[in-house]
This record gives sequence, C-alpha cells and structure tokens, in this order.
Amino acid sequence: MFISFEGTEGVGKSTLIQRINNTLLQENKEVTLTREPGGTVIAERIRALLLEVHQEKMCSDTELLLMYAARSQHLTQVILPALNANQIVLCDRFTDASFAYQVMGRGLESEKLEILNQKFITRMPDLTIWLDAPVEVGIARAKARGELDRFEQEKISFFNKVRSGYQYLYQTQPQRVKRIDATQSPEDVLAQSLSYIQKGIVI
Amino acid sequence: MFISFEGTEGVGKSTLIQRINNTLLQENKEVTLTREPGGTVIAERIRALLLEVHQEKMCSDTELLLMYAARSQHLTQVILPALNANQIVLCDRFTDASFAYQVMGRGLESEKLEILNQKFITRMPDLTIWLDAPVEVGIARAKARGELDRFEQEKISFFNKVRSGYQYLYQTQPQRVKRIDATQSPEDVLAQSLSYIQKGIVI
Repeated sequence: MFISFEGTEGVGKSTLIQRINNTLLQENKEVTLTREPGGTVIAERIRALLLEVHQEKMCSDTELLLMYAARSQHLTQVILPALNANQIVLCDRFTDASFAYQVMGRGLESEKLEILNQKFITRMPDLTIWLDAPVEVGIARAKARGELDRFEQEKISFFNKVRSGYQYLYQTQPQRVKRIDATQSPEDVLAQSLSYIQKGIVI
Repeated sequence: MFISFEGTEGVGKSTLIQRINNTLLQENKEVTLTREPGGTVIAERIRALLLEVHQEKMCSDTELLLMYAARSQHLTQVILPALNANQIVLCDRFTDASFAYQVMGRGLESEKLEILNQKFITRMPDLTIWLDAPVEVGIARAKARGELDRFEQEKISFFNKVRSGYQYLYQTQPQRVKRIDATQSPEDVLAQSLSYIQKGIVI
C-alpha cells in the first residue's frame, strides 16, 4: 500500500507520518518512510537545489522538471522496490504536490504536469491524506522552525493557491484523496488517518 | 541565429566553438557562447549533478529530466534573451544530445523526448554542426584530459549508439544538421563550419 501525505507548509505532516509509522511498526507491519523531493542520495541532492535560494530566479518549468527528475529516481530506487516487497510506503508528498505548487501555485499549464505523470510516473498512491489548515497557521509554524527555504519564502497568496489546488484534487478524486482538518488535536488527526489506512489495508 | 554543436566526447567541439567565436567577433558580430548542460548558475549546478559519479545509479528517466530542467533554465535565461537582442548564439550541445545520449545511448523511448521537446522547448537551433569522428579517437582524447565524468566512463558500445543517434538526426533533418568530418585538420573543420554559418547569416 502506497500512502502519500500532502498539505501546505507547517500543517504537521512530518509529525503525523512519524506517529503512523510507530503505530504500524507496533502492529508488526513492514513500513518504508520516505519523502519528496528526495528519498534517495541523488534525489536529496536535487531537493537541496530546489529548496536553496539562488542568485538567479528558477524558472517554473525547471522547478517542475527537477521535481520529476527527483521523483523518477525515488520511484525506481525506493517506492517500487518497497511495494514489491509488500511494504507499506508512507511518503511525505508526491505528484499532487506538483499539481498544487507548480500548476496552481506557479501557474504552469496543467498539460505539462499531465504529460510528465503519463510518461514518467508508473505508480500512483493508493491513498492520499491531505492535511488541511488555513495557510497562516502553517506559515507561522514554518517560520518558527528557523530559516525559510525557497518555497517557504513565498507569499500567503501563493500558499492559498496551493491550498486551492489540494481542494481541487480532493473534490475531483475523493476516492483516493482524503481531507483531514489539521487544526484538530494531533490525536484526532492520527486517529482519522489510521482509520483511512486500516480500511485500505483490509481491502 | 541559434547554432548548436554536437558530437561524442573529444571530437573538438570546444576548440571549434572558441575559434568560430573569435572569427565572428573579428567581424564585429555580437555573440553569446554557451554550453549544455549548463549555461546559467542553476543549470551549471544541475550539470555538476549529471556529470558526477554517484554512489547510486542514476535512472535514465532522471538523467533525461535533469537535462531538460537545465535546458529550460538555459533557454529562458540565456538563449532566448540573446536571440531577442539579435546576437548569434553558439551553444555546445542542445536537444539533439538528448536524442543521441538518452534515447539512443540509454535506450529510452523516443516518445519521452518528443513530449519534452514539444512542451518545454520553444526554440530549436537554426543550424546544428555535428562533428563526427570514430568514437575511439575522441575517447582517447577525453582520457588524456584527466579524470573521466559519469558519461565519459561509458563503454565504446555506448558511444557508438550515441554516434548512430547523430547519424540518424543528420539523415532525417539534413537542412538543419550538417555533418563535418572531425578527423580533418582543425583549419578545414573551421572553414567548413564557417561556410555553413555564413550561409545562415546571409539568409
């Protein structure tokens, strides 16, 4: 089972994924916990390039293509082998993030994304947990963590577009994408996530 | 006028481009001399990732997508602005290199390349000079230059596939792609290249 976690900055994805991982390990499930962009040596190098603030503006096409370069490496080296070994894969972000950030946030033609998904992504998540919260809350948390990366430095208006991207995916693919209110207590967020995951595992 | 230079390792592209640049500058032409992958701060960072020998195997899809990430940055930041300013752009490698190396060399589906060209490459070279020589000659020269990068470490059979890729482009797009025998003297190679370029400038 391949589960991705999505949401804007600071909504609590990392904490939730860690807690789900602990719960599944206690149930003796085999789990691979990974993240995007990144998850392999080469993909983490691409991640560093993507997050770093450069002296020149990174074009939106370049940003999208770097995301997919990292994603194809990650899929081939980590996700597919783990799924083939019957592990549960918990992945912090996947293709939906490119729809939310590059298409909705940056304003890229959705056709570019669709074509990359069609030609380079051979496996989609079985379940996607979207942690949703007003963007101001998350940005404040991200700021509290320290220096802001190239994405975190974006304006509130950018993150509102990203959030509306996730909203669109949730509305158009309700079977795969589940929305969880991230302003609830961490316990409630965990419990709801686990209930979706258990359903998926049983099926 | 946008001119790209292609060929396998060690065929003398860099020397030729430098000589053409000098000749054009003497004729008071404005010239932008650049290279791929690379040509901008961000694209040169991607180049470093592509050439470096990593502890994990880079997937062919990742290699192709990194090439196009660098290319879109280069096109937007360097090539298009220079062409808009009526400069002559001399570019060491462009999309043909991806056909030769990633499609023919690595065996990737040509559809992947076609789709990337269609969606992300808004400008093709007006003229492409293909420096052709038996691959053994070039490899020996590359080896003499010092430590071999990730591409230069490939086997002769790989470079023969790359060369056949260039041969295919030359045969199918003879109006744009011109073959020059790189085993000739540097003077003859320069003279032939300049004759193609002068024709293009006059037209």
